Amino acid sequence: MGNVTADISVSLDGFIAGPGDGVDNPLGDAGERLHEWVFGLATFRERHGMPGGETNRDDEILEESIRETGAVVLGRRMFDNAKGWGDDPPFHVPVFVLTHETRDDLAKQGGTTFTFVNDGVESALAQARVAAGERSVAVGGGANTIQQFLSAGLLDELQMHIVPVLFGGGIRLFDGLGTELVELETTRVVESPGVTHLKFRIAR
Amino acid sequence: MGNVTADISVSLDGFIAGPGDGVDNPLGDAGERLHEWVFGLATFRERHGMPGGETNRDDEILEESIRETGAVVLGRRMFDNAKGWGDDPPFHVPVFVLTHETRDDLAKQGGTTFTFVNDGVESALAQARVAAGERSVAVGGGANTIQQFLSAGLLDELQMHIVPVLFGGGIRLFDGLGTELVELETTRVVESPGVTHLKFRIAR
Repeated sequence: MGNVTADISVSLDGFIAGPGDGVDNPLGDAGERLHEWVFGLATFRERHGMPGGETNRDDEILEESIRETGAVVLGRRMFDNAKGWGDDPPFHVPVFVLTHETRDDLAKQGGTTFTFVNDGVESALAQARVAAGERSVAVGGGANTIQQFLSAGLLDELQMHIVPVLFGGGIRLFDGLGTELVELETTRVVESPGVTHLKFRIAR
Repeated sequence: MGNVTADISVSLDGFIAGPGDGVDNPLGDAGERLHEWVFGLATFRERHGMPGGETNRDDEILEESIRETGAVVLGRRMFDNAKGWGDDPPFHVPVFVLTHETRDDLAKQGGTTFTFVNDGVESALAQARVAAGERSVAVGGGANTIQQFLSAGLLDELQMHIVPVLFGGGIRLFDGLGTELVELETTRVVESPGVTHLKFRIAR
């Protein structure tokens, strides 16, 4: 059985979206700053139908994360914010969306399917595990969804791409977790010019 | 003129003290967890009058930070919490304490002097710069004091020792900073078994 992982870009002060976030501005003002390290990479460009791009250590890390992912779990807000990612979403694996609604599955181009799960996190994870097989289930966000997985003790691995910028506001990755101490083990540290990649295993 | 620096241990979720912090429990429950990486180091032991200890990469980083520090600025809450650090405080340099009171200077053993500054952060910094000479002024904490220096654009360097633990509550290092974007440059990343040392230069 694969790992349950979360892999996310975060500001040095712990925000995954900047101040001023809202329905029409899901990353907030300056939130795209967190993802600048990704846009020029060959793996990112390929998945968005563009040629070329850089093939550096950052690209290897992105490629590894994608290669190991067999299914994705998302919160509904993230799905709505992205308006379902159009006809050809960048996932190319089964995606399970946590919602309170009853909604039909959606099959898109390129192997992305959206299944809407309205009976909770554990159910979404069980379905995603079956879909992922030997590969990992990636908890794709938003913050609230990652927090639900962390609080329930369901996350095995966490990778944070720390961007050296202070937002001073926005949506925190770590919030409302409860105050039980959670120990992690740092399993990898990679320094790049514009981002530091920290990978952790979460102790049980 | 030396740099103005802050050098602080922080949980992965951004806390410098754990939940339950208060006057009688300044680090909060489990807050000492953040400083475990320091207690066994030769440099720490030497400064607290104990022989032996480890001389690894962590120790070099601690020693560097101490060697470069010519003066310290602290908040009054931190001074009070530590009850003035007894007769032989571990600083061994002039310390400037931000306060609203008028209070006489204190000279302790080993070269530590405490000067109480009641006319603001800029005044404390100016006095600390004179005392530090070519060396750095270290903003020693607490969080609120570091935040004042950050917000006022007075900090040149920041070193965070990230301990892979989630507290879920306590005192945040980054809080109430205002939402003007602050860019930093990552200048050093050092991975150790129990702590990751990230060093930044703050852009102006």
